Amino acid sequence: MVDRAKLVNKAMDEAVPLKYPETLNESMRYSLLAGGKRVRPALCLAACELVGGDIQAALPAACAMEMVHTMSLIHDDLPSMDNDDFRRGRPTNHKVYGEDIAILAGDALLSYSFEHIARATKGVPAERVLRVIMELGKAVGQDGLVAGQVVDIQSEDKAVGLDVLKYIHEHKTAALLEASVVCGAILGGADEATIEKLRKYSLNIGLAFQVIDDILDVTATTEQLGKTAAKDLAVNKTTYPKLLGLEKSKQVADDLIKEAIQQLDGFDDAKAAPLVALAKFIGYRQN
Amino acid sequence: MVDRAKLVNKAMDEAVPLKYPETLNESMRYSLLAGGKRVRPALCLAACELVGGDIQAALPAACAMEMVHTMSLIHDDLPSMDNDDFRRGRPTNHKVYGEDIAILAGDALLSYSFEHIARATKGVPAERVLRVIMELGKAVGQDGLVAGQVVDIQSEDKAVGLDVLKYIHEHKTAALLEASVVCGAILGGADEATIEKLRKYSLNIGLAFQVIDDILDVTATTEQLGKTAAKDLAVNKTTYPKLLGLEKSKQVADDLIKEAIQQLDGFDDAKAAPLVALAKFIGYRQN
Repeated sequence: MVDRAKLVNKAMDEAVPLKYPETLNESMRYSLLAGGKRVRPALCLAACELVGGDIQAALPAACAMEMVHTMSLIHDDLPSMDNDDFRRGRPTNHKVYGEDIAILAGDALLSYSFEHIARATKGVPAERVLRVIMELGKAVGQDGLVAGQVVDIQSEDKAVGLDVLKYIHEHKTAALLEASVVCGAILGGADEATIEKLRKYSLNIGLAFQVIDDILDVTATTEQLGKTAAKDLAVNKTTYPKLLGLEKSKQVADDLIKEAIQQLDGFDDAKAAPLVALAKFIGYRQN
Repeated sequence: MVDRAKLVNKAMDEAVPLKYPETLNESMRYSLLAGGKRVRPALCLAACELVGGDIQAALPAACAMEMVHTMSLIHDDLPSMDNDDFRRGRPTNHKVYGEDIAILAGDALLSYSFEHIARATKGVPAERVLRVIMELGKAVGQDGLVAGQVVDIQSEDKAVGLDVLKYIHEHKTAALLEASVVCGAILGGADEATIEKLRKYSLNIGLAFQVIDDILDVTATTEQLGKTAAKDLAVNKTTYPKLLGLEKSKQVADDLIKEAIQQLDGFDDAKAAPLVALAKFIGYRQN
């Protein structure tokens, strides 16, 4: 995973070179190259490889997933949204570059994610690349992470049930993890049945990812997280631990991870190992 | 042009239906269906027709151009950017839905513009659709309207020269008009030489469009514009009238429109008529 992160970081560094107007590109690069775990690119590359594809075919899409993720973090951190001062252990984008540039850097990253897939993907039939663009679009907009963020905002200071909380998590977090896996599989040439199996895998790890985020907000420190801990408690946010308690929430996350790994049963063990490892990484992460 | 606007409005109405979470879609629709002039879609459809294409092939791209334009207006109007209260004679998006939802509605429109082209374009080879996505991406991000907006922000309260002003106008305004025309031509099946001629046409009308915007800020009323007049003067912004005077600015706009129309010389007169009319419409508009 460390090697894959290096590969992706190098590709992203080259994809967003410093040019006029420098402030824009500096702001994009500040958040894009801030050293996250690169979970989405790793999933995208691993899915491509699992179905027999060359990871080079999925590399632009893998970078695009991280660009979209970064955009969503920059915009979510804004004063008019979650108003966060720290992210990945550093001041948030708008704290360094101002709100206006932060909004625009997010816009540029979002737009470039689609452009980069169309421009840089090589050796894949154009129809497949278009399908990847559709999957990514669905993961972002009115059926994806933006919709999840809207429902999240509307649920603040309100008691919401498990159905709404699940909607938020599935859209705000799982949708882009789903797109990462599914797009990797499409680019690798997977058949429809395989794509749907991997879609189920990714939705499970996506929901688990967010349940564990809720858990870590309670159990981890700000230092461990690189962002403000106990933030959900502070703003009285509905979370899995709040609705189900800490132990039951851990059980839910465990079950989701197990069910995700079950989706990989029909595959060659050695080939499926990276996606199994990524599921376990998400299931047992400490930050 | 009125018929074309109706066609585009109907297509956009269907493309962004009202669904859960309603606030997001209402906010998107509030600005998208606010009754602008639909200049970009009209250019896209006219360019497709000029080169012998069926306008249905360009309709999704035409809608996408308006979605991107709408996104840029929503984000530009935000308090941390131009802080405008009125747009097209109505309160701006954030005044109605709040800053957070306005930012997210812009994000969803931007993402959906790419998705809509990939999903809804029919009867066109996939390679051509991918090229359209690249052109649109270039028009938006670090080489397009976002870059123009960043330089615009950085030039506030500063005396800038004609070169910087031209950069702002070419990126903030002309880039998307260029993409509208060029994408229409690509979808219609134009050859490279024709695409480049139309690119020159569109860059000229794009720059003229913005020079005239600068002029109207001085000469028109808030009522005529549907947005705050004399705003550039109020914030001491560098404009064409400020640098060149009103008369010389009008001359520059006239020359740009003439040169644009010259690019259409080799085409059949009847077929070129809509693009000639659009150039004149931009050249002589009063709001």
